[in-house]
Amino acid sequence: MDREELFRELSIKNENKIILLVMDGLGDLPMYGGKTALEMANTPNLDKLAEMSECGVADPISPGITPGSGPAHLGIFGYDPLKYQIGRGVLEALGIGMELGDKDLALRGNFATMDKDGVILDRRAGRIPTEKNIELCKKLQENIKEIDGVEVIIKPVKEHRMVAVFRGEGLEDGLTDTDPQQVGKKWIPVKPLRKEAEKAASILNKFLDMVNEVLKGEEKANTILLRGIAKVPPIPKMQELFKLNPVAIANYPMYKGLAKLVGMTVVEVGDTIEDEFNKLQELYNDYDFFFVHIKKTDSYGEDGAFWKKVGIIEEVDRFIPKLMTLNPDVVLVTGDHSTPALLKSHSWHPVPVLLYSKYGRRDEVNKFSETMCTRGVLGKIRAMDELPLMMACSLKLTKYGA
Amino acid sequence: MDREELFRELSIKNENKIILLVMDGLGDLPMYGGKTALEMANTPNLDKLAEMSECGVADPISPGITPGSGPAHLGIFGYDPLKYQIGRGVLEALGIGMELGDKDLALRGNFATMDKDGVILDRRAGRIPTEKNIELCKKLQENIKEIDGVEVIIKPVKEHRMVAVFRGEGLEDGLTDTDPQQVGKKWIPVKPLRKEAEKAASILNKFLDMVNEVLKGEEKANTILLRGIAKVPPIPKMQELFKLNPVAIANYPMYKGLAKLVGMTVVEVGDTIEDEFNKLQELYNDYDFFFVHIKKTDSYGEDGAFWKKVGIIEEVDRFIPKLMTLNPDVVLVTGDHSTPALLKSHSWHPVPVLLYSKYGRRDEVNKFSETMCTRGVLGKIRAMDELPLMMACSLKLTKYGA
Repeated sequence: MDREELFRELSIKNENKIILLVMDGLGDLPMYGGKTALEMANTPNLDKLAEMSECGVADPISPGITPGSGPAHLGIFGYDPLKYQIGRGVLEALGIGMELGDKDLALRGNFATMDKDGVILDRRAGRIPTEKNIELCKKLQENIKEIDGVEVIIKPVKEHRMVAVFRGEGLEDGLTDTDPQQVGKKWIPVKPLRKEAEKAASILNKFLDMVNEVLKGEEKANTILLRGIAKVPPIPKMQELFKLNPVAIANYPMYKGLAKLVGMTVVEVGDTIEDEFNKLQELYNDYDFFFVHIKKTDSYGEDGAFWKKVGIIEEVDRFIPKLMTLNPDVVLVTGDHSTPALLKSHSWHPVPVLLYSKYGRRDEVNKFSETMCTRGVLGKIRAMDELPLMMACSLKLTKYGA
Repeated sequence: MDREELFRELSIKNENKIILLVMDGLGDLPMYGGKTALEMANTPNLDKLAEMSECGVADPISPGITPGSGPAHLGIFGYDPLKYQIGRGVLEALGIGMELGDKDLALRGNFATMDKDGVILDRRAGRIPTEKNIELCKKLQENIKEIDGVEVIIKPVKEHRMVAVFRGEGLEDGLTDTDPQQVGKKWIPVKPLRKEAEKAASILNKFLDMVNEVLKGEEKANTILLRGIAKVPPIPKMQELFKLNPVAIANYPMYKGLAKLVGMTVVEVGDTIEDEFNKLQELYNDYDFFFVHIKKTDSYGEDGAFWKKVGIIEEVDRFIPKLMTLNPDVVLVTGDHSTPALLKSHSWHPVPVLLYSKYGRRDEVNKFSETMCTRGVLGKIRAMDELPLMMACSLKLTKYGA
């Protein structure tokens, strides 16, 4: 029996409520005075909660592996992040708020400059401004609406980056990029890596011919390089695996998209952390699983802005009493991965985990931090084990075997 | 995606340098005053290094499993030791410094005594002296050089133990031993366990007839029992999986052989620990991964020589400043398994691990020992996770997924 079969068989529905609070990129490395952002932050409420909770640390994937946002979130949603791979094109489309179904093939495109022989002179078309990108995508969309019965949807992202989605029957992924990866080389037509992808390859190559025709008068952005062509993997929904009725409270499109992939209801919410906690309160009677996503811990980590990361953690801490006032049965607070300000990027380091419920053991952890949590009773777990633990603590998993 | 695909995809080459210092059989059990050899040893330099490092403990395989040298080393080299099995014949051949390729079938033989009907009277031929063994192997090699186009290489080991390697096309393993496992029973001809092994079985049975003919005048050692007939498993090289340029500094043949199996360059080095650290310094500019193997912690553990094990650990400790003077980016110090003097054998106990790098978290461990390391931020890991961690800390692993 694999783990998904196990959850399908053992999960039951009840009235208990679970809140999963994720501070994106929460994990950090020691900087000032040998402290991480979380250790530096003044977090009396999280510390009090840690004292009442079972604590531990989680590897997002496995020791040493740094995850992108896609696999990191799949993990905390209870899925094996090595089993389901979310292509770059899919993630980019989710990131601009597009909805993707099982007939959709998504890709990320870079506007680029080529000479008359198709040799790439600039892989980013001189990083054209976003306004120009928007104008070009509009022009492309007007001229390219459908190819061989497949609908084509073209959207701008930022600077030279765009997204195209192909919607129709018989489109399968397993397709090569067209980007030669260096200037001075010709772009490469799309090639199918398996027989099922032949139809898609043919449509994408026709698409490129049409794109080059439409853009032919452009000085800089006279072609598009296609990358990360992918479909949404067939992920079972959380309703099906865990019998949850989940909702996502997130204000960045990519996380909303990831939540939607696993079946969560996605609601509109304002930009601030306060907006998110207000929304949680507002929706509290309507769902049994609440994914609350705080983005800026990650953003400031990526910027190397240690003190701003500290500030966001402190802001979240101030809303913990509001959250606890809802009297949830289970609360899990963690990050999806580490984004140490020291590295200015995602990293492989484990993240602290705090699991509050009526059915927890005691440990000595009375401060929510990376190092203190290693002394907690949960020990070292994998991120994908967090959801089963939340389910168990809300008595939503029955016994395996007699 | 499995872990090897992951490493293949994510690993990159850079200038950072990794030193993996393995004290064979380092882990121990409490004896005098309730202390292990490592706890008893005066190790100011390892303790200082532990203080600057992330610490933890590693299961060589999984809880309760005692590994041989083969699987234990595969683990610390980053391979799943349950995926690749190194046959006893292969290990014995590597142990006497033979080089094995993909056309080689290796076996371990025991000189034995049989009666005229093939009934085994002594499974070790009265443990004949090594000199006699050498003489017999020479005589066998002179008379048996080739069978059906397959080259035969015969080498003595110690006492009654010898090695034979069969080199040629179409030799596959999956072959039974000829040892009846008890005296008073006849030796058993080699049987193929699968169709592909039929050619090898036929050659081995011809080999046995020839051996019995050559040895027929011998009083004690008048036959050989064949065991552990095996080929080298198809292990991907560290260059391929991890894009490392690795070198092994080891002075015992078996460890050199194991290192060679995974693609390491193996260099000649003198017998002492000082020789090994001098060699490390000498080679430091030429490689990016250094496996330094200290044998005697294990040998003295096997002998039950607790205080001698303590002495070796202290000797290694004195060379830590020399190692750190090289200014490596990542240092991992551990054992491949435990060899408690109390048990006089390998054991299943986890080994302490110390991981030094610029990108580590702090923990309270300021003494390198089995028990203290359990409080470290690395927590409990599997030995095969050590290589990904070293790779991550030297920034040689890119992000998984977008």
